[in-house]
Amino acid sequence: MKLLLKEIRHNPLLWLLAFVPILFATVKLNHEAHTLLFVLSVLAIVPLAALLSHATESVAAKTGDAVGGLLNATLGNLTELVIALTALRAGQYMLVKASLAGAIVTNTLFMLGMSFFLGGMKFHVQEYNRSSARMQSGLLFLAAIALLIPSAVSQADYTGGAAFTQKLSLGLSVLLIATYALSMVFSLKTHKEEFASAEAEGGEGHGPAWPIGLALTTLAGVTVLVALVSEVFVESVQKAAESFGMTQAFVGFIVVALVGGAAEMASAFSGARKNRLDLSVGIAMGSASQISLFVAPVLVLLSYVLGPTPMDLQFWPGAVVMILLATLTGCLVTNSGRSSWFVGVLLLTVYAIFAMTLYLLPPRVS
Amino acid sequence: MKLLLKEIRHNPLLWLLAFVPILFATVKLNHEAHTLLFVLSVLAIVPLAALLSHATESVAAKTGDAVGGLLNATLGNLTELVIALTALRAGQYMLVKASLAGAIVTNTLFMLGMSFFLGGMKFHVQEYNRSSARMQSGLLFLAAIALLIPSAVSQADYTGGAAFTQKLSLGLSVLLIATYALSMVFSLKTHKEEFASAEAEGGEGHGPAWPIGLALTTLAGVTVLVALVSEVFVESVQKAAESFGMTQAFVGFIVVALVGGAAEMASAFSGARKNRLDLSVGIAMGSASQISLFVAPVLVLLSYVLGPTPMDLQFWPGAVVMILLATLTGCLVTNSGRSSWFVGVLLLTVYAIFAMTLYLLPPRVS
Amino acid sequence: MKLLLKEIRHNPLLWLLAFVPILFATVKLNHEAHTLLFVLSVLAIVPLAALLSHATESVAAKTGDAVGGLLNATLGNLTELVIALTALRAGQYMLVKASLAGAIVTNTLFMLGMSFFLGGMKFHVQEYNRSSARMQSGLLFLAAIALLIPSAVSQADYTGGAAFTQKLSLGLSVLLIATYALSMVFSLKTHKEEFASAEAEGGEGHGPAWPIGLALTTLAGVTVLVALVSEVFVESVQKAAESFGMTQAFVGFIVVALVGGAAEMASAFSGARKNRLDLSVGIAMGSASQISLFVAPVLVLLSYVLGPTPMDLQFWPGAVVMILLATLTGCLVTNSGRSSWFVGVLLLTVYAIFAMTLYLLPPRVS
Repeated sequence: MKLLLKEIRHNPLLWLLAFVPILFATVKLNHEAHTLLFVLSVLAIVPLAALLSHATESVAAKTGDAVGGLLNATLGNLTELVIALTALRAGQYMLVKASLAGAIVTNTLFMLGMSFFLGGMKFHVQEYNRSSARMQSGLLFLAAIALLIPSAVSQADYTGGAAFTQKLSLGLSVLLIATYALSMVFSLKTHKEEFASAEAEGGEGHGPAWPIGLALTTLAGVTVLVALVSEVFVESVQKAAESFGMTQAFVGFIVVALVGGAAEMASAFSGARKNRLDLSVGIAMGSASQISLFVAPVLVLLSYVLGPTPMDLQFWPGAVVMILLATLTGCLVTNSGRSSWFVGVLLLTVYAIFAMTLYLLPPRVS
Repeated sequence: MKLLLKEIRHNPLLWLLAFVPILFATVKLNHEAHTLLFVLSVLAIVPLAALLSHATESVAAKTGDAVGGLLNATLGNLTELVIALTALRAGQYMLVKASLAGAIVTNTLFMLGMSFFLGGMKFHVQEYNRSSARMQSGLLFLAAIALLIPSAVSQADYTGGAAFTQKLSLGLSVLLIATYALSMVFSLKTHKEEFASAEAEGGEGHGPAWPIGLALTTLAGVTVLVALVSEVFVESVQKAAESFGMTQAFVGFIVVALVGGAAEMASAFSGARKNRLDLSVGIAMGSASQISLFVAPVLVLLSYVLGPTPMDLQFWPGAVVMILLATLTGCLVTNSGRSSWFVGVLLLTVYAIFAMTLYLLPPRVS
Repeated sequence: MKLLLKEIRHNPLLWLLAFVPILFATVKLNHEAHTLLFVLSVLAIVPLAALLSHATESVAAKTGDAVGGLLNATLGNLTELVIALTALRAGQYMLVKASLAGAIVTNTLFMLGMSFFLGGMKFHVQEYNRSSARMQSGLLFLAAIALLIPSAVSQADYTGGAAFTQKLSLGLSVLLIATYALSMVFSLKTHKEEFASAEAEGGEGHGPAWPIGLALTTLAGVTVLVALVSEVFVESVQKAAESFGMTQAFVGFIVVALVGGAAEMASAFSGARKNRLDLSVGIAMGSASQISLFVAPVLVLLSYVLGPTPMDLQFWPGAVVMILLATLTGCLVTNSGRSSWFVGVLLLTVYAIFAMTLYLLPPRVS
């Protein structure tokens, strides 16, 4: 407990934890203040995500390489998963899909681009492990294909029908999870020497690892808190978006993705500024491929249990185009294993193009 | 003749030759047993394709580098060509196009992926000649563009009309064949040193080369047999597909492509397991580019003579998307010149995504 | 003045200058001879573009690295800009867009492909600076995304509406110009050592640099002449195209792009034949990215002042597909930093595929 308090004292991000009780108090007092609740829930999720991320890493560090890697790989995007699950249970599939697509795009373009940019501001040219980046971008490309196919085929022929899309989505989900499992066998077991520098990830970020008891308790407690805050967030986001003049597509794609990934971004950016670009690339690309190969298909499977109706993997065509372009950009950019500030500008500009499009999009579409 | 028998004794694949007379007998006895005829014709084509492939290589080995390379390059996909010609004469353009698209996708994803996977099971990391793989993937990308353009342009504007598509397909066919011819000048003549290890291909596969007389006789005789068996195959495939519950798209794309390419796959996989990945990549990518730059346009030209109406190069949009994605995946994957088992898994998963989509597709589409 | 005359005597291309007075005389005599005026204006633009290009380089050479690079970068495609401006003022947005798309495609495929081919005819294998080519192809890819998004999103949903497309185009234009400015900071200032060989560009091409006075006078005078000739060109092109049996899409995409880029092509090809492929790649890719990141958005901004209505960045879907494919081809091809004649053939074939498609396209589409 002392460790947890010390951590909070030393990490200004965690001061935002104060917004968690404020949020719950506000909910009690004024259930209809959507815009206020939205802002408060955003402010409350950010530090919770940071705590969750540190707790996961601490548990991982204690349990040895294989199990630890597995834990990191499955719980690394726990915040995104909990937010999406809350939206899933509320039947808001549009928001779930937008936040999944947005998380993939935001990690590949914004997190990676900003890492390159911040690193490039301090170092003239930075190098990183190409073979690790290549595997991650290969996985991402694969996932982009899986997300593209249901839309491409049913779009093209208008004969698919919901039953076809649903069966296909189920099959694809199983396939993606299996591939993700094999990718972990590859990177944690048979070829782990090729991912050497990414392994140093555990313990990085927010100081020393916690004892296992504290870590597990924090993990459980914070997950519950994230779930509660997410509920407020999901309820208020739509109304708040309207009052801010933002389309729902923009909120799901950009705002939710930035909020859910805030903790990882902090790690990735700090890695880049310490010339440890392997770490940044690993977090950004790894997180993107984890969401597309693990979180998204798990949500499809869980929708059969938790949701009002099963969810499919058919995305809005514009989102598919953005995922595909983000993935291709990521593949082309990480192919060289070298980076300088302008590479970051390129990625950030593509992100800005997408954000601008979604912001200006007439609201009916989302 | 003794050599031919010895070859048959030593190669279990060739024992399947017994199915050739069984097939013809069944046709005589029961012309309507579509499912049985389909299964028998598949079993009969596989060993014939293997013989054809060995005969071609033997002729190529006797005639010196340039002519031999030319022979290999034009007759290497003779089985696919004969099957497609039979379907063409029957006016089954849908099946012709599905089998062409399927052969490109199957070679690029399944043959290459399985080679990487099988090789990777035995060897930790395998390396191969990047510059050869790069030329092949460049050719494939070019062909994908040629196949994409008629669909993209006529789709986009709905004004194309059949006359435009037909004229364009004719022009593209001539262009593709010319480019294919130039690619042979490049790889067999002006820059053959860059394709050094691929040249060892002749004689590889099924033991020593045959004398020229035997090879030529086998080539002629087996081609006739393949043509006869293909006729049964093409007639029975549609009815059989229905009784198996498979869509025609699935049969053309997956079943025909796997059957037609069985012999080449045997060579590619055995090469990979002997750590001769150059051979495997050469067969897989070379075969894919040969089908797209030579077999497909030749079929368009021949359709003016043999078919009921001219055939065009406009594919079903879903097929175009799959060809393009398979090609891009192939380009990205072979770019590094290194492989391990997981690269194979990536390619096989993309193939599984396509196969699953085609299998689930409502039948009306095909 | 003596220098200018000497230059003209030694450069056969400049003898075409005789067509400038001939053109103006013809306009006076027979205002309706569209086909003749079209041919004469093409013949007159080519030498003017060459003069303009040399004058720009001379001014750039005198003004030092940073300002010179800036000048080269902004005035390098002055001919294309003036032609497009004339079409813009005439409200011919279809022609403006076709010529922009065509210039991008022509530079990436034809200029680069012909450079590789001509260079490859003299040298077995040529090498060039990968990192410079990579930045240019990254910029091009970015621009392709920006041009793709308005069409993709509004196509996909049919809800965009003109207001959305217009606002988005304005925002994208500002974004592209800002990115282009940053790319100049990168290549001329912070990382100029990586672009070392491209810097030798100034002074290359047509002999020694001119004194500043002559250069500035020529720059001003020739720009006026190009503007006057462009006016005749834009007026006559549509009628002339009809009488030649060419579609407007073909004229804008292919003819205008080849005419506008003739001078740069001369430099790029001569560089390739001198084994200075860095120069050729720099001119071709640099020019393509300049048109997409600078000329196109500047025209959008200027359309608010000069045009009858604002112009947007929404291109005909076929043009978007071609830009994207040309860019991807350019990225894949320049990735290796090596070239031989067949790489040129590949690029030229893709160009031929596009040209053939546009030539055969039923006229209603354009």
